[in-house]
Amino acid sequence: MKKIDVCLSPDLMHLYKTDDRTIVVVDILRATSCMTTALAFGIQSITPFALLEECRAKKDQGYFISGERDGKKVEGFDLGNSPFEYMDEKLKGQNIAFTTTNGTQAIAKSIGAREIVIGSFLNLSALAKYIRQGKNDILIVCAGWKGRFNLEDTLFAGALIESLKDHVELECDAPLASLVLYQQAKSNMIGFLKDASHVKRLANLDIFEDIKFCLTADHFNVVPVFKGSRFEI
Amino acid sequence: MKKIDVCLSPDLMHLYKTDDRTIVVVDILRATSCMTTALAFGIQSITPFALLEECRAKKDQGYFISGERDGKKVEGFDLGNSPFEYMDEKLKGQNIAFTTTNGTQAIAKSIGAREIVIGSFLNLSALAKYIRQGKNDILIVCAGWKGRFNLEDTLFAGALIESLKDHVELECDAPLASLVLYQQAKSNMIGFLKDASHVKRLANLDIFEDIKFCLTADHFNVVPVFKGSRFEI
Repeated sequence: MKKIDVCLSPDLMHLYKTDDRTIVVVDILRATSCMTTALAFGIQSITPFALLEECRAKKDQGYFISGERDGKKVEGFDLGNSPFEYMDEKLKGQNIAFTTTNGTQAIAKSIGAREIVIGSFLNLSALAKYIRQGKNDILIVCAGWKGRFNLEDTLFAGALIESLKDHVELECDAPLASLVLYQQAKSNMIGFLKDASHVKRLANLDIFEDIKFCLTADHFNVVPVFKGSRFEI
Repeated sequence: MKKIDVCLSPDLMHLYKTDDRTIVVVDILRATSCMTTALAFGIQSITPFALLEECRAKKDQGYFISGERDGKKVEGFDLGNSPFEYMDEKLKGQNIAFTTTNGTQAIAKSIGAREIVIGSFLNLSALAKYIRQGKNDILIVCAGWKGRFNLEDTLFAGALIESLKDHVELECDAPLASLVLYQQAKSNMIGFLKDASHVKRLANLDIFEDIKFCLTADHFNVVPVFKGSRFEI
């Protein structure tokens, strides 16, 4: 039986040995939901960057550049962090350079893992199936908010663990807590999250449709996998 | 209304500004439960040490020395980490030097806060009353297990937040998650914790009575407060 653990913040990554693991990076609102959407809609690849200026520099190499900080699109970038922006015919077959406040930071800290894949509610069942078919133990890395624990990424960790439950052994208390929280939340996820800090932060930006979409399970049947320096399906 | 936040691991302390806060340090199994018990039973003071050898050196200065690593009493120390060891007539009025795997590490990282107090189920209501009467915002610091999230400390954070609920504003997602987990667990705390990793670790050491005692609410009406270099009541 595979082992599964949850790292509740990228700032706790130093506690985990990852070179023999599949890491699932999760940033529900909204980086990994965007990445899943973009690749499902026919974008060729997504190259993640922790640093804004490194990402911006890819513009000259023919990439569409996508940049978000503190929930907002960065000036001068082609795209921001709403999944709806990636449902666009003109992006099909294109390569995207991608940087966000939390998600791409979590990806940067995951480099060195045996494998890195992208998780979101949008591809929950596809991801669960992919993991069941694989051989590696799993570490779910929640992107959080600037190093802090957040609820929506933890709920996704719980949802993935529930989907895998006869196939995995919970290693520590973090997966147990994630599962209990998800079981409490799942019948009314938006209601449960209404007091969550990042949801409030995003609600101020008037993107309720984004939130609703990012909490939709199984909209896409894809699993973004990190290959070399970029995610592809 | 006071603000309240929860730091789920000492390894996340760098994210929090603490110089204007009262920090509640929590290590339910068993450091802060022992400290509460010891001071309630008439021990004069407890001086915490992160480092074993610094603690050991206090023996020559007339202290009783108390040392635990990985759940076990350290060889050559007078006392270990069971609350029952501190219910001892011969310790009344004595000063104790104290080091544990997680609890005293969390205390060391809390130095610099406006105030540091000790929390455990054993003094839950006394602590809640103390906080209601104070003026500072609150940060609950969960000692965890070697930097990792743990369930019993998080449940205590939830219990304290519930006790304070009309007097505090939850600042972030960690207090919200702690409260939800506690509300799920409170009717059967031992049952809820049976799969928790540290409870399993301690169960292997055959200290079920310790666990049961440490989960008892309001056994003592004391609040250990850090003064200079030591905790007193």
